[in-house]
Amino acid sequence: MDTRTVTMDEVFEELRELLEKKRMKELKDRLDDMNEADAALFIQTLPEKEMAMVFRILSKEHAAEVFACMEIDEQELIINSVTDKELANIIEELYVDDAVDLMEELPANVVSRVMKNATKETRELINQFLNYPENSAGSIMTAEFVDFKKDITVKEAFERIRAIGEDKETIYTCYVTTKDRKLLGVVTVRDMLLSPYEAVISDIMDDNVIYATTTDDRETVAQMFKKYSFIALPVVDKEGRLVGIVTVDDAIDVLQEEATEDIEKMAAIIPTEKPYLKTGVIETWRARIPWLLILMVSATFTSMIINNYETALSKFVILTAFIPMLMDTGGNSGSQSSATVIRNLSLGDIKFSDIFRVTWKETKVALLCGLTLSAVNFAKLMFLDHTGVTVAVVVCLTLIATVFFAKVVGCTLPMVAHKIGFDPAVMASPILTTIVDTISLVIYFRIAGFFLPI
Amino acid sequence: MDTRTVTMDEVFEELRELLEKKRMKELKDRLDDMNEADAALFIQTLPEKEMAMVFRILSKEHAAEVFACMEIDEQELIINSVTDKELANIIEELYVDDAVDLMEELPANVVSRVMKNATKETRELINQFLNYPENSAGSIMTAEFVDFKKDITVKEAFERIRAIGEDKETIYTCYVTTKDRKLLGVVTVRDMLLSPYEAVISDIMDDNVIYATTTDDRETVAQMFKKYSFIALPVVDKEGRLVGIVTVDDAIDVLQEEATEDIEKMAAIIPTEKPYLKTGVIETWRARIPWLLILMVSATFTSMIINNYETALSKFVILTAFIPMLMDTGGNSGSQSSATVIRNLSLGDIKFSDIFRVTWKETKVALLCGLTLSAVNFAKLMFLDHTGVTVAVVVCLTLIATVFFAKVVGCTLPMVAHKIGFDPAVMASPILTTIVDTISLVIYFRIAGFFLPI
Repeated sequence: MDTRTVTMDEVFEELRELLEKKRMKELKDRLDDMNEADAALFIQTLPEKEMAMVFRILSKEHAAEVFACMEIDEQELIINSVTDKELANIIEELYVDDAVDLMEELPANVVSRVMKNATKETRELINQFLNYPENSAGSIMTAEFVDFKKDITVKEAFERIRAIGEDKETIYTCYVTTKDRKLLGVVTVRDMLLSPYEAVISDIMDDNVIYATTTDDRETVAQMFKKYSFIALPVVDKEGRLVGIVTVDDAIDVLQEEATEDIEKMAAIIPTEKPYLKTGVIETWRARIPWLLILMVSATFTSMIINNYETALSKFVILTAFIPMLMDTGGNSGSQSSATVIRNLSLGDIKFSDIFRVTWKETKVALLCGLTLSAVNFAKLMFLDHTGVTVAVVVCLTLIATVFFAKVVGCTLPMVAHKIGFDPAVMASPILTTIVDTISLVIYFRIAGFFLPI
Repeated sequence: MDTRTVTMDEVFEELRELLEKKRMKELKDRLDDMNEADAALFIQTLPEKEMAMVFRILSKEHAAEVFACMEIDEQELIINSVTDKELANIIEELYVDDAVDLMEELPANVVSRVMKNATKETRELINQFLNYPENSAGSIMTAEFVDFKKDITVKEAFERIRAIGEDKETIYTCYVTTKDRKLLGVVTVRDMLLSPYEAVISDIMDDNVIYATTTDDRETVAQMFKKYSFIALPVVDKEGRLVGIVTVDDAIDVLQEEATEDIEKMAAIIPTEKPYLKTGVIETWRARIPWLLILMVSATFTSMIINNYETALSKFVILTAFIPMLMDTGGNSGSQSSATVIRNLSLGDIKFSDIFRVTWKETKVALLCGLTLSAVNFAKLMFLDHTGVTVAVVVCLTLIATVFFAKVVGCTLPMVAHKIGFDPAVMASPILTTIVDTISLVIYFRIAGFFLPI
């Protein structure tokens, strides 16, 4: 990998030199020859003024592809520095899913300028797609697919692909529809290439079509790509009419975003869509402070419990020394279970109906973990810390009980949340910590009260 | 989604009925017509005996596809119940990446039976692929790709695809190689379909090939799919010879597995590859107990600090009441930063060279968060808890300092770990908690000592 990474940096260096020496023709040829993702990366490294200038020397077709790979801030900058005609070209060349993403993130005045420069058809299509609910299959699909009638031959199909394929997001999976756009079947270019040119599409198409509907959750749709190894998936409306396709690259983005969101939620962060380095300090603060506040205030419970046992603690200050260890072990045990369950729920590997199986397994794991931890801890307390048997017994019994409750609550809480329509990841570590802290302190003082004269 | 899910359950019900009524011909037709992933799911729901029986009625080509979609336990069961001839058929039909995965997980005696039934070529290919390092591009690539010489025409290329395409994992991206298998260029079926049949491959191929080498990290390779929206990526050996391709479905699996691993590591779990519900209690215990033990023992530091201030705490038991709140807030603040940085490192969105930018940003966010939290907490302590000004000041100053240290350590620790070749995710929440707990207790008692007569 290293050799290539160095090479890409070197390539960027060479391009910057061409730009400095104003050898624009050479620069244009090099950029047009590059993969659009790399060209976009390069252009985004340039200072504002040069960015627009270099973008404008790209060839017409390449420009829209490069544009689609850029970040929103740079896209806005480009839009603000091209002519209406150039803007119209970009908009018409963009796949509708990319155009919709753009419209959703641009400021209103820029959106209205973009829309003004789009053709009527494009404008209507964008507006239609903007109406699909957030996080639905409709919101990530695109309209550029190849469709056939069922009675044409492979040869005719290839001619149709040649005629209309240029602007399609994928040509490898084609869709067979009725006159009123109902989805009949799917045929891949692979099927067609492996059949004679005279074969009729209806004979080689797969009529057992796996599809999504516009209102399906986009995460469920993305998981279907993982299950079926598709390149594209058709999306139909309520009437069964084919309205769009989701392609595998968008499914990858969804899977990655959902994983990031889960990680953020587990870490008590409110997810934002902006990349970290592009998010301002205030925005980052706003994403992080709510949970910190909620969790700080909810720690009142633990304070109350400790205050309740004030006299006991002043008699046995040694008990205080183990509070952090007990709380941390409880927190760690609980988040092991909750993280496992949340991830498995996200991947669709466990369902609510598995709750008893999961809880039973976690119970056994919890008892094993609790016994191991308390055995090690007992030895440590007796031979290293010399706390005396009674305190050691109190701490170790609390440890077993805490690990047990932490793991059981840690696995059931996200499953129940998922079932009643809450977000399992939000129910994770942070809330869990407060619950487990409270439970473990109560157990601790109860057990201490049983064994010690407090 | 719901309608379809119900339908799939109903379909399985119908299939089970056909099986009960021994209408095997109908069952076979239905299964052969189904997507292989669904057929595999259905077969895996059956009791052991019926599983092998139903698998054996599948048509020859479909059988291998369905087999590739099954879980390892069921694959082993199938292997143990088919004849040598049937086994040979499965092995020859499997893509080499799937065969390699299988060999890596099967018990040794089963592996040797499988290898005995493979042809010499397949055996050699599997052995070659088994030698690539774990988590390398070589370990996830497959050998079934289409390659051309550069001087053939599109028409000839299509003929070659027709001749050899049946067994290839993808035919959509084809590779142009020299006589000694050096990679010259890439040409997609899309390029070919949009060119005249007489066009020569060397004129339409892209010679600016983006490729991986066999020893590249599989995660880096998977990230390339995200960046470039590829369907397949060529993999070359040290001499630049094309030895395999990675396909997008494998890239998705890698991205998902890496995200799961990161989540597990952040939750103090040692990652395992087995699905949760298939992992035994002892195995789960083994994945979880090491970190629990390490972190429990490392909490000795916090106990030592508290013991050090024993007299102070017996005089001001109220100070004890805020220990859980301070520790939890520190832990939450730190894991917000570390989770963000770890995920961004994984996605390639931040690099070590960003460390100053990141630390500076986290410093500002930390101060903002610390100020907000201590303002709210001060009000709460004064007007709700009536602790008196001095205690409130001590707690709030500690809060600001704790949040500051937690966030700064939380962002630098994973970045430094990443730089020196350690796993950033392992440096995350769990280790961080211990460090932050220790720091925050020391600060707490220092500040308390300054304001209170302890």
